[in-house]
Amino acid sequence: MAKSTHTSGAVEKKLVGLADLVIRAAEKGRDPAIEIPVRSLSNVKFNERKRIIEMGSNTQDRTFFNVGMAKKFMQTMLVGDALAELQRAGLTTSLREIYYRAKHTIADSHENTFDGQNESDPLIEDLEVALEALREELHVRAENAGTVIGPLTVLDDGDTVDCAKLGKGGYSVPSIVEPDYVQIKKCTADFVLLVEKGTQWNRLAEDKFWKKYNCILLTGNGQPPRGVRRLARRLNDEKKLPVYVLVDNDPWGYYIYSVVKQGSINLAFESQRMAIPEAKFIGLSSHDPEKYGLPRNVGIKLNEKDVSRAKELLNYPWFQKKEWQKEIRHMLSVGLKFELDALANKDFQYLTKKYLPKKLQDKDWLD
Amino acid sequence: MAKSTHTSGAVEKKLVGLADLVIRAAEKGRDPAIEIPVRSLSNVKFNERKRIIEMGSNTQDRTFFNVGMAKKFMQTMLVGDALAELQRAGLTTSLREIYYRAKHTIADSHENTFDGQNESDPLIEDLEVALEALREELHVRAENAGTVIGPLTVLDDGDTVDCAKLGKGGYSVPSIVEPDYVQIKKCTADFVLLVEKGTQWNRLAEDKFWKKYNCILLTGNGQPPRGVRRLARRLNDEKKLPVYVLVDNDPWGYYIYSVVKQGSINLAFESQRMAIPEAKFIGLSSHDPEKYGLPRNVGIKLNEKDVSRAKELLNYPWFQKKEWQKEIRHMLSVGLKFELDALANKDFQYLTKKYLPKKLQDKDWLD
Repeated sequence: MAKSTHTSGAVEKKLVGLADLVIRAAEKGRDPAIEIPVRSLSNVKFNERKRIIEMGSNTQDRTFFNVGMAKKFMQTMLVGDALAELQRAGLTTSLREIYYRAKHTIADSHENTFDGQNESDPLIEDLEVALEALREELHVRAENAGTVIGPLTVLDDGDTVDCAKLGKGGYSVPSIVEPDYVQIKKCTADFVLLVEKGTQWNRLAEDKFWKKYNCILLTGNGQPPRGVRRLARRLNDEKKLPVYVLVDNDPWGYYIYSVVKQGSINLAFESQRMAIPEAKFIGLSSHDPEKYGLPRNVGIKLNEKDVSRAKELLNYPWFQKKEWQKEIRHMLSVGLKFELDALANKDFQYLTKKYLPKKLQDKDWLD
Repeated sequence: MAKSTHTSGAVEKKLVGLADLVIRAAEKGRDPAIEIPVRSLSNVKFNERKRIIEMGSNTQDRTFFNVGMAKKFMQTMLVGDALAELQRAGLTTSLREIYYRAKHTIADSHENTFDGQNESDPLIEDLEVALEALREELHVRAENAGTVIGPLTVLDDGDTVDCAKLGKGGYSVPSIVEPDYVQIKKCTADFVLLVEKGTQWNRLAEDKFWKKYNCILLTGNGQPPRGVRRLARRLNDEKKLPVYVLVDNDPWGYYIYSVVKQGSINLAFESQRMAIPEAKFIGLSSHDPEKYGLPRNVGIKLNEKDVSRAKELLNYPWFQKKEWQKEIRHMLSVGLKFELDALANKDFQYLTKKYLPKKLQDKDWLD
């Protein structure tokens, strides 16, 4: 079980502070209110200097004696209570279980405290921003859908796990990798390769790419889950490792990279501790099919959605660099997207033996 | 890299045999033909004695000098060739990469060998049944979406991996766990608990349930992928461990259990080496909410699809036991489904501390 540490003690204190606030207001006969930063597009901006998406400083009061807010206020308190229970017991749980935990029928009524998880999830995000605590610090897990292999030794729940000695399977990255839970004991790698899809991760693991190039292979099987992003961020932060992101050449791949690099609009608050502004895009670039001689017939025609998504990306402040405009416009002009899997058209080990070695040697990446 | 062994040598021989057959036919001026077992519902039956879904003995010839079959015959050979390449090089890959590998434009034409993965996937299944080789033996991977923790030591690619010493993260179950790739070195567990969802697996891992109850905790994050099923099957086969399946109480949960237990209709051929006829359904049962005092408001109303799916299940030969009919009919009569997550309504550790201990003590499961 997770041991309480300074950090979790501090979070518990903040949660209890919420309840105190209500009690103090009640004693004084005042309307209790919580100040919650506004989580909408209007309060989000790209910080050019730090190169991350950040939240602005607008806040809103949530009060109890307000017909429109009373239920939400009560619900916020219930969620806060469930979160405090997690802190006290040193437990973690999922968004869904918090919903179930906080759900009950209000005494002498037929009304439920919550009718769906869509009512409790946003309140957890409200509390994250109001209390300035990462979701992980509130002990709320996402899925643990990631895998890591390479010269990295971590301490997890008292066990020393050497990720270079786990065959081709690897260590299943926990959803929460905060220092309270997972300590980085040793890391002798030169860089982190964050691979979008499991197929390519498997190829690289099977070929022991990480051994030859002394790197950490990380995948989240699609859009990387929070644990994978936090681990990459910590390796970048604490071990000063460059992070290279390898994704399909399509608007979705560009987007995955951009979330890893500067965070997302929806969770702007977390960028400061989730984003990796130094991350590089190592491929697939829209120029790669030509450079590496991939035939046109392994490309996939861009559909309408791809085209409009790509045009949206062209307007994002963080894609304004000349090279990025060229990259995205070239995809649009060719009219094709390419999956990493298409490299297998050359041969099954092309990724390991030709593509990545050349990319690394030529420092052929985008920033 | 995977070392070739007796098994993979045998598979390569079978694949080369395909090519030989064409050459021999050409030399004799005959039409080359491959005999392929029929993979359709008409050729599938439930074997009451073995308690698995099996393929019947109907086969069909695929010939080259037949306008309707010529392209498919050629495609089958191309896929066979790509699979033979994998065997020779000791590599594994994905269905998608095989498609890309075998795709090219036919000389002096604008025609592609394959226009989509939907053309190559069925041919791989054809070759599985024709050559009597599991997909894993053909070196084709699925996703590695599973995680395991507990008193189990495996040898993976020369590394000895002790799954009891991997913190709360665990060992990421490789897609291919055939004896050529993963050897079970030691296993002192009393049983395997196969958990549908990652949330509950995380709960049990965090609470060290596997230590107290001396079991192996396995999850596939949803419908268990092939590697997870094969690992459970091997632990059942080789180590004689009972396998208990823990799923949501809904038709989908029943179905997941039934696939683990007797295989699936679509892949009937594989049941002999994938199914676990001794697997038990430990919950959630439709009787559990009452037994464990879960309030009605944490149940979810069955929708039309749930109801019709449940009625289909009632007709499957493998759900004809009295207890199963009672189980499914009870869900229908209550009109609610329950997620495992709903146990959190009692308290966050209810699953670990109350529900499962009582289930195990009372041997309260369905066969």
